[in-house]
Amino acid sequence: MSFDELLVQKTKETEDIILSYLPKEEGNQKTVLEAMNYSVKVGGKRLRPLLMAETYRMFGGSEEIIRPFMAALEMIHTYSLVHDDMEVMDNDEYRRGRKTTHVVYGEAMAVLAGDALLNYAFETAALAFEMKPGYIPAEKAMMILGRKAGIFGMVGGQVCDVEAEKRQIPLTKEQLLFIHENKTAALIQSALMIGAVLAGAGQSDVDAMEKIGYNIGVAFQIQDDILDVIGDGQELGKPIGSDEKNNKATYVTHAGVEEAAKQVELLSKEAVALLEQVPGEHEFLDQLIMSLIDRKK
Amino acid sequence: MSFDELLVQKTKETEDIILSYLPKEEGNQKTVLEAMNYSVKVGGKRLRPLLMAETYRMFGGSEEIIRPFMAALEMIHTYSLVHDDMEVMDNDEYRRGRKTTHVVYGEAMAVLAGDALLNYAFETAALAFEMKPGYIPAEKAMMILGRKAGIFGMVGGQVCDVEAEKRQIPLTKEQLLFIHENKTAALIQSALMIGAVLAGAGQSDVDAMEKIGYNIGVAFQIQDDILDVIGDGQELGKPIGSDEKNNKATYVTHAGVEEAAKQVELLSKEAVALLEQVPGEHEFLDQLIMSLIDRKK
Repeated sequence: MSFDELLVQKTKETEDIILSYLPKEEGNQKTVLEAMNYSVKVGGKRLRPLLMAETYRMFGGSEEIIRPFMAALEMIHTYSLVHDDMEVMDNDEYRRGRKTTHVVYGEAMAVLAGDALLNYAFETAALAFEMKPGYIPAEKAMMILGRKAGIFGMVGGQVCDVEAEKRQIPLTKEQLLFIHENKTAALIQSALMIGAVLAGAGQSDVDAMEKIGYNIGVAFQIQDDILDVIGDGQELGKPIGSDEKNNKATYVTHAGVEEAAKQVELLSKEAVALLEQVPGEHEFLDQLIMSLIDRKK
Repeated sequence: MSFDELLVQKTKETEDIILSYLPKEEGNQKTVLEAMNYSVKVGGKRLRPLLMAETYRMFGGSEEIIRPFMAALEMIHTYSLVHDDMEVMDNDEYRRGRKTTHVVYGEAMAVLAGDALLNYAFETAALAFEMKPGYIPAEKAMMILGRKAGIFGMVGGQVCDVEAEKRQIPLTKEQLLFIHENKTAALIQSALMIGAVLAGAGQSDVDAMEKIGYNIGVAFQIQDDILDVIGDGQELGKPIGSDEKNNKATYVTHAGVEEAAKQVELLSKEAVALLEQVPGEHEFLDQLIMSLIDRKK
């Protein structure tokens, strides 16, 4: 099977796992349950849970305990988009070619649907405790998920991003990297670290996966910024040029498209080289990382 | 020591524990860390963590593992207020006599500070896993916290509350009770259940505490609605009459103040009677529950 075929198949498997953990749309809370599920079902690459599952396999994991964490991570990623798209935040109307949650369900429901998704992510991850009570790696995975999603991870990066936009003061390259590392790389790091931890990997391997996640995440964000300049809005499912419109400093405004693209390639190749140093078969992971270099969406 | 003196002392102890878990206000995320801590430090009765600690003691618990859960519960309660006060929600400017978070820090920061607090609650609760790795009651406590805070608990109740307000269709008594049970009682139930579970109580005792939490929570909400009619805005730290202003159906609009007050007393006395059926010394808990019947704030 070619990499492209494998990717389609594995993305489908990942998608099915995520959808299996969504709540039923019934009862007094039906509307917000619909809003939660709408946001998750809009789709996307499912990159984070896919990376988690592949890392888990690489380290020899073969149990179902990875599944609630895969779904939980995608829920966290999704809630952050729901809140980020709100009027009081970025005020974005389209994502992945579909109306954003606040446009469909209103601002108040977007706040609550986002809150509900974040909370449900932790409820979902905690299902691992029912599957294997007293299993310390699941407890560690929960701690990693919390840390990387929170104020010292993703939310921390978002806050600095929002503040920088409001202040309209140009960011230094260091500040920009702080935002990339936290806003984008932290969840990808948690994917790789949780995959490793749940499979019983040792601390040095978990540390290596954290570093690899940093590279993948920062490369991913720079490529996002490149696509906002030279991408195809139709293919992306959202309008391009939003960074320029918002007068937003990115790696591209700092270094130019060409230099930024070089950086994406460098970070990605380094990530693949680092993978050589951990045990396990990782051909698909290598290909996945390299495929992100010239992604168009 | 009188009950009032004991209450002051125990509230202070609870407050100290909560504050000890707040993040340091430093680094690139300083502003949002300040906003998070501002919201928690505004104060309040600290009723939920206090109930948790007392239940834990009642069932013979004496370890520090209760502490991260006490702080986590107060953070969840606080984040829900931060989001609830936002312009796109209730648009409230004062709480506990101080400006609300969105007024001080702006709407975008209120969204993110609330998200950060909710996430930090789970990070904080997960510290219990470091204190006692593989301890199954801590895993169960985490599951209870997640469930009662989420879409099948507090957030579920909030959603129905917000929807009812927007639709302006009068609520039936059953719908109103659904909102009370979830929006208000769920977190109080989690306080009592987590206290019991962490102390090693059996399932029938945990179930009893869930029922007691229902009574305390519903009584608490009805008393809130009474105070919104006959309370003293100065003492409450927020304007009264907001339910009438928002044309909001409450237990008081359904049954009148007198009948509502009777219901608060009935529910509270039943809670105290139910406490007789679980093991352990609970004089202070009895007094605390009874003191809430005629609270003025």
